[in-house]
Amino acid sequence: MRIGIVGGGQLGRMLALAAHPLGIRSTVLDAGDECCASDVADHIHGTFDDVAALEQLASRSDVITFEFENVEVEELRSLTSTRIFPPLDALAVSQDRFSEKTLFQSLGIETPRFAAIDTIDELRNAAGEIGLPAVLKTRRMGYDGKGQFVLRESADIERAWNELGGTPLILEAFVPFDRELAIIAVRSREGTMATYPMTQTKHIGGILAESIAPPPHISKETTASAVQAVTAIAEKLDYVGALALELFDCDGRLLANEFAPRVHNSGHWTIDGAECSQFENHIRAVLDLPMGSTACIRPTAMLNLIGRTPALGALAHFPDLRIHLYRKAENPGRKVGHVTISADTHEALDAALTPIRRLIERYTQR
Amino acid sequence: MRIGIVGGGQLGRMLALAAHPLGIRSTVLDAGDECCASDVADHIHGTFDDVAALEQLASRSDVITFEFENVEVEELRSLTSTRIFPPLDALAVSQDRFSEKTLFQSLGIETPRFAAIDTIDELRNAAGEIGLPAVLKTRRMGYDGKGQFVLRESADIERAWNELGGTPLILEAFVPFDRELAIIAVRSREGTMATYPMTQTKHIGGILAESIAPPPHISKETTASAVQAVTAIAEKLDYVGALALELFDCDGRLLANEFAPRVHNSGHWTIDGAECSQFENHIRAVLDLPMGSTACIRPTAMLNLIGRTPALGALAHFPDLRIHLYRKAENPGRKVGHVTISADTHEALDAALTPIRRLIERYTQR
Repeated sequence: MRIGIVGGGQLGRMLALAAHPLGIRSTVLDAGDECCASDVADHIHGTFDDVAALEQLASRSDVITFEFENVEVEELRSLTSTRIFPPLDALAVSQDRFSEKTLFQSLGIETPRFAAIDTIDELRNAAGEIGLPAVLKTRRMGYDGKGQFVLRESADIERAWNELGGTPLILEAFVPFDRELAIIAVRSREGTMATYPMTQTKHIGGILAESIAPPPHISKETTASAVQAVTAIAEKLDYVGALALELFDCDGRLLANEFAPRVHNSGHWTIDGAECSQFENHIRAVLDLPMGSTACIRPTAMLNLIGRTPALGALAHFPDLRIHLYRKAENPGRKVGHVTISADTHEALDAALTPIRRLIERYTQR
Repeated sequence: MRIGIVGGGQLGRMLALAAHPLGIRSTVLDAGDECCASDVADHIHGTFDDVAALEQLASRSDVITFEFENVEVEELRSLTSTRIFPPLDALAVSQDRFSEKTLFQSLGIETPRFAAIDTIDELRNAAGEIGLPAVLKTRRMGYDGKGQFVLRESADIERAWNELGGTPLILEAFVPFDRELAIIAVRSREGTMATYPMTQTKHIGGILAESIAPPPHISKETTASAVQAVTAIAEKLDYVGALALELFDCDGRLLANEFAPRVHNSGHWTIDGAECSQFENHIRAVLDLPMGSTACIRPTAMLNLIGRTPALGALAHFPDLRIHLYRKAENPGRKVGHVTISADTHEALDAALTPIRRLIERYTQR
């Protein structure tokens, strides 16, 4: 079996690495000469809207999937010869923060208050209704905290508009959350659902810095509410593959922030900490294979390597650390790898993390 | 960093797969067009004694290692530009069952009784001294039970000689063992040693069928004796990398059978069951990186897929099963993949194994 992946970054790399032990080969479509997935996958050079390149990818693949949701849906729709999962409608919804939150609302999933913004007057009105602080975001193409402006006082309205105005925007209430959580679900082509234990995530400057799964001190009710939300979304979208839902935890009350129709950074811990990783389960789901267990083996923490890759010897100095380097060019803010560590208890995990955090912080460039 | 691997079979494939997350790329040397490591490594076509091909491999690699011990040592010695680990002297000893057992003896490691055989008269004498049953083996190039003849009665002497005579042979006492065990050690370039928990192995027709790590019901004394033996061998050979020692367990008394100067089938469980796999630790050792933990996470069983690859969907039907397919052409007796399963206790492992064994047995062709 062969899988085609639109995008050749680290997610494509880890998908291809997970596919090999199943005897499945991957081909990635990526315009970059040095796309990091090409170490472990065949590589078709082309942009995501290059129909000829997409057709070449389709001709080599039993199924097409993507590692990046900001691709042009219309070009993909033209590929009728090869099945594409997750469904393109899920992609389309996730590409627009307003459609996404409207979907959440329609399914009874709580979200921060929000309003679509096309003019500065709409922004002024919405700021009045929602109240400040609030976050103005582009509806499309934002990731890792890009395309966002936090409004703290009325004077910020004009500054925010000057920075982001001119494209469709959304204003969202600023949520004074206790912590951020994420949940990864996988849904098969027959509609079987499985969810991984939740992940507690910590972002710095809009970029995921660290995650712990399962989250320390999480109630059954909170977990059930996250499972219910991600299940409702996946079923509504007739979803196939791995799907990540990011949530704010406000004293046990969950507000949905956004979903990603793909494998997700908040699920990287599953490679080392779960019976079957999000990458392998995504591949199994889109290829119509039975899914692997999503059970967590032991509490596991993940730390992103951002901007610079630490010396391999320094990382390997921690004998229990699992190292995942992406072989990407270094650049401030860019995710160049991640590490995980597992322990029998959250307390032991916490103790093990301290010196690792210190090492990684020395190399990090945000 | 780049690693060169002599041999492109499943061991090379799993070495290369373990290298990628460390950001290390691999090149394999293999004469086959369809060598299964080439899915995940660059591939130089050439036989193991092709000096030009070896030099090409060396020019692309920071260090050279091998996945197959029956290579010509002299050609490798000519490569002075690139370091080679494990040391070629270790390779040379392991290639000859008589040198190997003589080494064990010199280190005080118990072995079955043995004698070098070059003539039928020597065979007759040795059979008298050692007693029957005994096993006549070629001193060189045997693997997976090939090049062996079990002598049960005097009349077998001539038959065995007719089959194997003409090359250097060794006669070994037939050991009525309770079980077979193996231990994998890793030794760094600085001489740091680590050993994995032992593995209980079961061969059928000379081919490893199944292993369980750690072995059920193993005493501290037996484990200590295995660790002592493999440590003595590694230190005597100034060994670098992963090394496997196969042992017979005779009511707690261990007799050394043979060692392999490479990653080994009895250590495949370490990919899923140990903190850091034998493959990754071999790479770390030969590249002079700190070693990863050899601790076992949970009792883990491995079953080889022999002769035929079961349907992927049938394997994936067991949600906790870890699947490792090699994408090799099917052939009776050929190892085409393996699977592992872990559980919290040996009892739970045993229960989980029963239906998996049944499935795999249906596909096996020995």
